[in-house]
Amino acid sequence: MRSSMGTFMPVVLLALIGLVPAPAVEAADRDKLLSEPGVYGTFAVFTLDEDWAKEDQATRIAHLTVLRGVVEQHREHVAIDLYLMRGLSDHADLMFRVHAAELRETQKFLLDLQSSLFGKHLKTAGIMHGLTKKANYVPGFPDQMKADLKPASEPGPKPYAIVIPIRKNADWWTLDQDKRLAMMKEHTEAALPYHKTVKRKLYHSSGLDDLDFITYFETSKLEDFHSLILSMEKVKEFQYTRRFGHPTLIGTAMSLPELMEALAQ
Amino acid sequence: MRSSMGTFMPVVLLALIGLVPAPAVEAADRDKLLSEPGVYGTFAVFTLDEDWAKEDQATRIAHLTVLRGVVEQHREHVAIDLYLMRGLSDHADLMFRVHAAELRETQKFLLDLQSSLFGKHLKTAGIMHGLTKKANYVPGFPDQMKADLKPASEPGPKPYAIVIPIRKNADWWTLDQDKRLAMMKEHTEAALPYHKTVKRKLYHSSGLDDLDFITYFETSKLEDFHSLILSMEKVKEFQYTRRFGHPTLIGTAMSLPELMEALAQ
Amino acid sequence: MRSSMGTFMPVVLLALIGLVPAPAVEAADRDKLLSEPGVYGTFAVFTLDEDWAKEDQATRIAHLTVLRGVVEQHREHVAIDLYLMRGLSDHADLMFRVHAAELRETQKFLLDLQSSLFGKHLKTAGIMHGLTKKANYVPGFPDQMKADLKPASEPGPKPYAIVIPIRKNADWWTLDQDKRLAMMKEHTEAALPYHKTVKRKLYHSSGLDDLDFITYFETSKLEDFHSLILSMEKVKEFQYTRRFGHPTLIGTAMSLPELMEALAQ
Amino acid sequence: MRSSMGTFMPVVLLALIGLVPAPAVEAADRDKLLSEPGVYGTFAVFTLDEDWAKEDQATRIAHLTVLRGVVEQHREHVAIDLYLMRGLSDHADLMFRVHAAELRETQKFLLDLQSSLFGKHLKTAGIMHGLTKKANYVPGFPDQMKADLKPASEPGPKPYAIVIPIRKNADWWTLDQDKRLAMMKEHTEAALPYHKTVKRKLYHSSGLDDLDFITYFETSKLEDFHSLILSMEKVKEFQYTRRFGHPTLIGTAMSLPELMEALAQ
Amino acid sequence: MRSSMGTFMPVVLLALIGLVPAPAVEAADRDKLLSEPGVYGTFAVFTLDEDWAKEDQATRIAHLTVLRGVVEQHREHVAIDLYLMRGLSDHADLMFRVHAAELRETQKFLLDLQSSLFGKHLKTAGIMHGLTKKANYVPGFPDQMKADLKPASEPGPKPYAIVIPIRKNADWWTLDQDKRLAMMKEHTEAALPYHKTVKRKLYHSSGLDDLDFITYFETSKLEDFHSLILSMEKVKEFQYTRRFGHPTLIGTAMSLPELMEALAQ
Repeated sequence: MRSSMGTFMPVVLLALIGLVPAPAVEAADRDKLLSEPGVYGTFAVFTLDEDWAKEDQATRIAHLTVLRGVVEQHREHVAIDLYLMRGLSDHADLMFRVHAAELRETQKFLLDLQSSLFGKHLKTAGIMHGLTKKANYVPGFPDQMKADLKPASEPGPKPYAIVIPIRKNADWWTLDQDKRLAMMKEHTEAALPYHKTVKRKLYHSSGLDDLDFITYFETSKLEDFHSLILSMEKVKEFQYTRRFGHPTLIGTAMSLPELMEALAQ
Repeated sequence: MRSSMGTFMPVVLLALIGLVPAPAVEAADRDKLLSEPGVYGTFAVFTLDEDWAKEDQATRIAHLTVLRGVVEQHREHVAIDLYLMRGLSDHADLMFRVHAAELRETQKFLLDLQSSLFGKHLKTAGIMHGLTKKANYVPGFPDQMKADLKPASEPGPKPYAIVIPIRKNADWWTLDQDKRLAMMKEHTEAALPYHKTVKRKLYHSSGLDDLDFITYFETSKLEDFHSLILSMEKVKEFQYTRRFGHPTLIGTAMSLPELMEALAQ
Repeated sequence: MRSSMGTFMPVVLLALIGLVPAPAVEAADRDKLLSEPGVYGTFAVFTLDEDWAKEDQATRIAHLTVLRGVVEQHREHVAIDLYLMRGLSDHADLMFRVHAAELRETQKFLLDLQSSLFGKHLKTAGIMHGLTKKANYVPGFPDQMKADLKPASEPGPKPYAIVIPIRKNADWWTLDQDKRLAMMKEHTEAALPYHKTVKRKLYHSSGLDDLDFITYFETSKLEDFHSLILSMEKVKEFQYTRRFGHPTLIGTAMSLPELMEALAQ
Repeated sequence: MRSSMGTFMPVVLLALIGLVPAPAVEAADRDKLLSEPGVYGTFAVFTLDEDWAKEDQATRIAHLTVLRGVVEQHREHVAIDLYLMRGLSDHADLMFRVHAAELRETQKFLLDLQSSLFGKHLKTAGIMHGLTKKANYVPGFPDQMKADLKPASEPGPKPYAIVIPIRKNADWWTLDQDKRLAMMKEHTEAALPYHKTVKRKLYHSSGLDDLDFITYFETSKLEDFHSLILSMEKVKEFQYTRRFGHPTLIGTAMSLPELMEALAQ
Repeated sequence: MRSSMGTFMPVVLLALIGLVPAPAVEAADRDKLLSEPGVYGTFAVFTLDEDWAKEDQATRIAHLTVLRGVVEQHREHVAIDLYLMRGLSDHADLMFRVHAAELRETQKFLLDLQSSLFGKHLKTAGIMHGLTKKANYVPGFPDQMKADLKPASEPGPKPYAIVIPIRKNADWWTLDQDKRLAMMKEHTEAALPYHKTVKRKLYHSSGLDDLDFITYFETSKLEDFHSLILSMEKVKEFQYTRRFGHPTLIGTAMSLPELMEALAQ
């Protein structure tokens, strides 16, 4: 994306932003926060206010440097991922995905963000919380399916990120575990063909938000992702879904310097 | 939270806010208002307007001192609890939970709040009212269950507060009392394992708002709270629920000085 | 309410507003408009804009004097009641209940109100219209029930006012009159215990608004009102209700000088 | 309405507006546009922005004169009717009903309107389109009913105008024509008693908007209109209605000079 | 449309805009993007902010020249179509339909658009994404139907463009392919009479948005389009539709110079 955007960007901006090394957000416990159960995941979506567009570039760069400072300051406690939503999602310009052992740590980060010079230009478009948990149904799956689920998705950049909140209906929750297991087996079988190209992460939200789940996807092949969702709509378990999306959030994952470059323009 | 926030806070601010003793909101009848039936509970949620962020810190502190004055002035008639919602809830920065013997007392407090210098920065994001009543179904519960319900939740700070408004459907209300009692027994049984770590308070709202109940929770263990709600979704009574959340409000309970410190930044 | 508010109010304001006699809104035909069938009732709810809070008190008093002028000018044609909603209802600061023989008279009043210096600070939050009609089902009730319905509610101030819009579903309207009569008898029986303490007025709205009815309540005992609504939810007729509230409007009835005093602050 | 409004209006305003002859909007093909099938009817609803109230009267009159110019310029191609909604409808100040042989002509008028000095004060609150068509079911009605439908409604002013958008459900459209005809016969029979006092016009909207029909009513007797809608709710065809109103738009029909006078204040 | 609009337009504007040749948006791969499967189609709808109306014409022309620059810069990677929505759709002034092989290319264009001087006046009213795919059911259709579908729609300008988003319900997706094929045959049969005058294009959206399909129509005969939609509502497949429209977007297709002329006013 940089090359295309760079065509409009004065040399001074490239000097100010492009040469800055990516902040070491890969702090000590980032890997644990992103892989273990019992971690809180927050999706915070913001728009930039009208004044942002009116600031001159130097001011915007100064403000974005403040953003970098806030992110760096909190990286010991929370794992922060950044997404550019502008141009792909309605009424959302950027998204923060924040993982923390305690939701208070996330609140501290978002408070500092919103109190900062950069944050004064942000309007909250949405916040959703979920909790990572051990896989609920996998232990009951056949061994072959367990094996198929093991390998991680293909390496390489997965620029597109999609967030789909889900609420199941009351009938789902009153089904006994066996029936739900059978349906989740069918669900997983239908999803397997896209296991390699579409990375997926599940957050449990009941009580933490007006949701039961937040599903998060990363892919470089949006068409595969579309086919995955289509497969999900065709299995029996989908009939127990009361809310799917609304909003469906779609954006592109970016490093902090990439995001700064995109917003500095 | 103070230590983390303090890193950004100039010494003068700590002097102005941090050393101020917490106002004696624990006035004479606070205990009664928080424990007895026949008390009105109001949840008033506000956002800070865009000008707030633009005021300098001295002005913000002056305005927060006005807030303290308004709270102190009304503490004889109403019991006021404060919550920081920013960073955890969409479009809400702070919440007041107000208990009063008469809803007019609450209106007077909120009027004075909104007319104050601080209040000019507040936009009302939502107001919900409910009434505390004697337990409806407990008298019909078995003795063992009654005994299990008696002990208060574990002592110690419970920083997280969650508010979930509920509306039952028409079928619920036309069930006879026996059937509702049986379902509430199942409901209570499923909730008991979380009795110690999740404190709960119920408000009856029919007619006072577009709701039947406001459920209020306090906990230091959000994961237990999540498990509690998940258990509630699995009992039969949940099928008679027409609205659950929308909004689910989540924030952290704060003393007035803590809230002032958080907002002064 | 005056004593509490007065604590903040300078003497000059009391002189300007407090001593002004209540405008004679009890004009010639007010009694007829409030009691007869064939009268149009309009509930117009407004918020005050952000500039209102920024005007100094002298300006606010000047504007409120204009409000009084507009109300007085129209009192020959329409009956106007005033309610303070701020502090009790979301996004509503004041409500006008206007009764008129012709809806055009109400439009003229609201036009003049909105064109006035005071009205420039008002934003329309909602307008609902209904028509008073002769009791539909009472003639078919048993004599004892008719007798029980006759006495007016207890005298004395009823500060709380609640407005609940209602829409019945299509099944209700296709029931034959006998079946609806039987259900309304059950409904009325359940409501009777609250007849003395909760005053009630019914407006028919089909076609005049996205509603079938507007129900208006006045009481000094909100707990009785809550019990009344709970009783209404338990009768069979409630199952034919598609919309109940949304919004439920709750406020306190005020004389014009009381409202002026509350808003002058 | 003029006499009442005039009480506040300086002589100079009456001179500027009151003496201006009504623009000859009754242009050549207005009658055809208002009576023939195959004509597009657009209901465009606007609010005036906050700056309008702040302009002085001379400026407002100048802007309203521009409105008159735009209306006159387009009267050869489109038939324009004006309605004052302020005071009767939420969030709507005025409505234009525009009839045109081609929807592009309507777009041209509304573009010129919005680009004009007056239009800069307008915010679009809603636009709905429909198409006039030959009566669908009348050919299958009995002769007596056809005869009853023939006479036009009573002459004389019909100041109130009401617009109710309607969407039928999927079941309605899959019924065969005979069953729909039978239900429309019942519908028409129930509507006949109000034929003289409530004028009605039907627009077909499927595909042109999120609607199936726009129903437009004119009357001087709002109570008759209310009774008409109540009758419509009681026939079987109403059970196939998915949306009725939302919004129900209610206002008063005005000539251009009357509307200018009302808005000049 | 130019002749009518030109009546208000000074000669200098015509010189600045009218004589400018249409930018060569028909770049190399436009035809492929508009006809092949596996292409992403984005519908981005914007309103102009209040400041736009207040800019003088020279500034507006300067900004529109920037719009032309952004469009030209991206035409190698994306195919861009423009529509004037103002006057026909609520709260939308213009629409961009963008086709790209990768959604990132579309994001780049919309980012550059929004960062541009012209874009600072735009507010995003909505963004919807879909993917073109090979016809799903046509291979199973009888040969005669396949033949009937082959000819392109009649040549000549089709000024009206309509976008209708669609979501099917869960029952639709669990039907087996045979049953869906049978219903799509009925659907296509009912649509065939309008094949010549209404051009249609289908985008698959599951997962990319809160939709399953985006249907796009072009026609010069809106009445035929209305009849087409009416026919679609009458076939069995329509009963499996959960959302149809909301919003229905309607506007007129324009070349870039035509749009510039319309917005320069």
